Amino acid sequence: MVATHYRVIYGDTDQMGVVYYGNYLRYFEAGRNEYLRAKGARYRDVERELRIRLPVVEATVRYRHPARYDDLLRIETEITEVRKASLRFAYRIVREEGEKLLAEGETVHACVDLEGRPVKLPERLVELLGP
Amino acid sequence: MVATHYRVIYGDTDQMGVVYYGNYLRYFEAGRNEYLRAKGARYRDVERELRIRLPVVEATVRYRHPARYDDLLRIETEITEVRKASLRFAYRIVREEGEKLLAEGETVHACVDLEGRPVKLPERLVELLGP
Amino acid sequence: MVATHYRVIYGDTDQMGVVYYGNYLRYFEAGRNEYLRAKGARYRDVERELRIRLPVVEATVRYRHPARYDDLLRIETEITEVRKASLRFAYRIVREEGEKLLAEGETVHACVDLEGRPVKLPERLVELLGP
Amino acid sequence: MVATHYRVIYGDTDQMGVVYYGNYLRYFEAGRNEYLRAKGARYRDVERELRIRLPVVEATVRYRHPARYDDLLRIETEITEVRKASLRFAYRIVREEGEKLLAEGETVHACVDLEGRPVKLPERLVELLGP
Repeated sequence: MVATHYRVIYGDTDQMGVVYYGNYLRYFEAGRNEYLRAKGARYRDVERELRIRLPVVEATVRYRHPARYDDLLRIETEITEVRKASLRFAYRIVREEGEKLLAEGETVHACVDLEGRPVKLPERLVELLGP
Repeated sequence: MVATHYRVIYGDTDQMGVVYYGNYLRYFEAGRNEYLRAKGARYRDVERELRIRLPVVEATVRYRHPARYDDLLRIETEITEVRKASLRFAYRIVREEGEKLLAEGETVHACVDLEGRPVKLPERLVELLGP
Repeated sequence: MVATHYRVIYGDTDQMGVVYYGNYLRYFEAGRNEYLRAKGARYRDVERELRIRLPVVEATVRYRHPARYDDLLRIETEITEVRKASLRFAYRIVREEGEKLLAEGETVHACVDLEGRPVKLPERLVELLGP
Repeated sequence: MVATHYRVIYGDTDQMGVVYYGNYLRYFEAGRNEYLRAKGARYRDVERELRIRLPVVEATVRYRHPARYDDLLRIETEITEVRKASLRFAYRIVREEGEKLLAEGETVHACVDLEGRPVKLPERLVELLGP
């Protein structure tokens, strides 16, 4: 598991006084970026050097308690499945103050080449991400 | 089913040249707003007059084909479940040109009062949204 | 002047109960896109056919009155200056109900080739946009 | 001057491969929040305890060089003017790698009470923010 921190800004909230539901997918992405960096597979390099992309094919968020302006969030990210041509990430968004679980979710990613065609996950990437 | 139209702007895209995955939840919201308006239950009035809110407790998106800059999207929205204290919406995002299905998804909404406590869906709302 | 309409969603607002200040630049972009389309210079085609881009080099917004959730906005866009290698757009955001001016602003755009080097505005574009 | 750091995500970029021009106003806000926190005037407390808000009445951004995906940005924020009922912040966005200035700008803020009426800046706030 890799933890990333993020401070909620006004621009993340909506008029219900809580973080807008779509913005959790931005937090998931920030968590995913730092996960890959921590494993030595910075996404920028994955695109450039391995010549693949990992577009999201499915995303789910379960909202437990609302995140609020100025909350310091901890985004916990891990990979829960590595298949031949796809990956699954799982996320937990926790408010640091009080250690409250705010949201959970998953994203499933296909592996495609730079023209968008499905391809196998490169060996090199599986090694870096594997158990 | 209620259809809403939206033209993709640059600000919706990311450097992969397609709409950022989190923005589909914005499109779902636009569809939901127009669905409620069409049924005579404008969300602004629901909050003000029925004194309830319908926060999202779960959201899922399945990405079929990428939406692109300047695409004219049709967001098809319907309610697929009305329970005692929750609602389920389903969405389809279709590119008008070529009638291509780009994404599908669902959101589940709790019914809460203005202090955030779970309450039953008001009769009046069930009548407006019911079959 | 070209008018574009947009309905404010929850995702545009912040916890002050009004549209987040950064989102007016999204509205300006929507206005700019429709302005160019109306003049026969759809931005997508400008990039593809004239092989140029028009990145923003300066943007200003003056906020008069807050836009709110579910407001129907009219974005009025015009070009106020065409120079050798730059353009200036001006915008007014008006709430349709009550015809209230909510915000005004400008963006200045450089003309660059697809490698990002400054170039003169193509004749063809000046003709389409000119007075 | 107070420095805040932010790592650019995919969701901040657009299909030009650079950060979308509207998102710099989000970065300015993050800088402003940390500036106020550093001065002991956390914006959340300003709203709650001093019963005022500081809505933006004007914002300007000058874009020098594009910020890109995965850039680590340093947002430098300071207050350049304290008047009876308004404040002016200035910002510089710098890419840490290579110390490159990417954008500059200002925001002007009115001081209003919780009903939105203009009021003088509270003494307490002027003391905290003053030179």
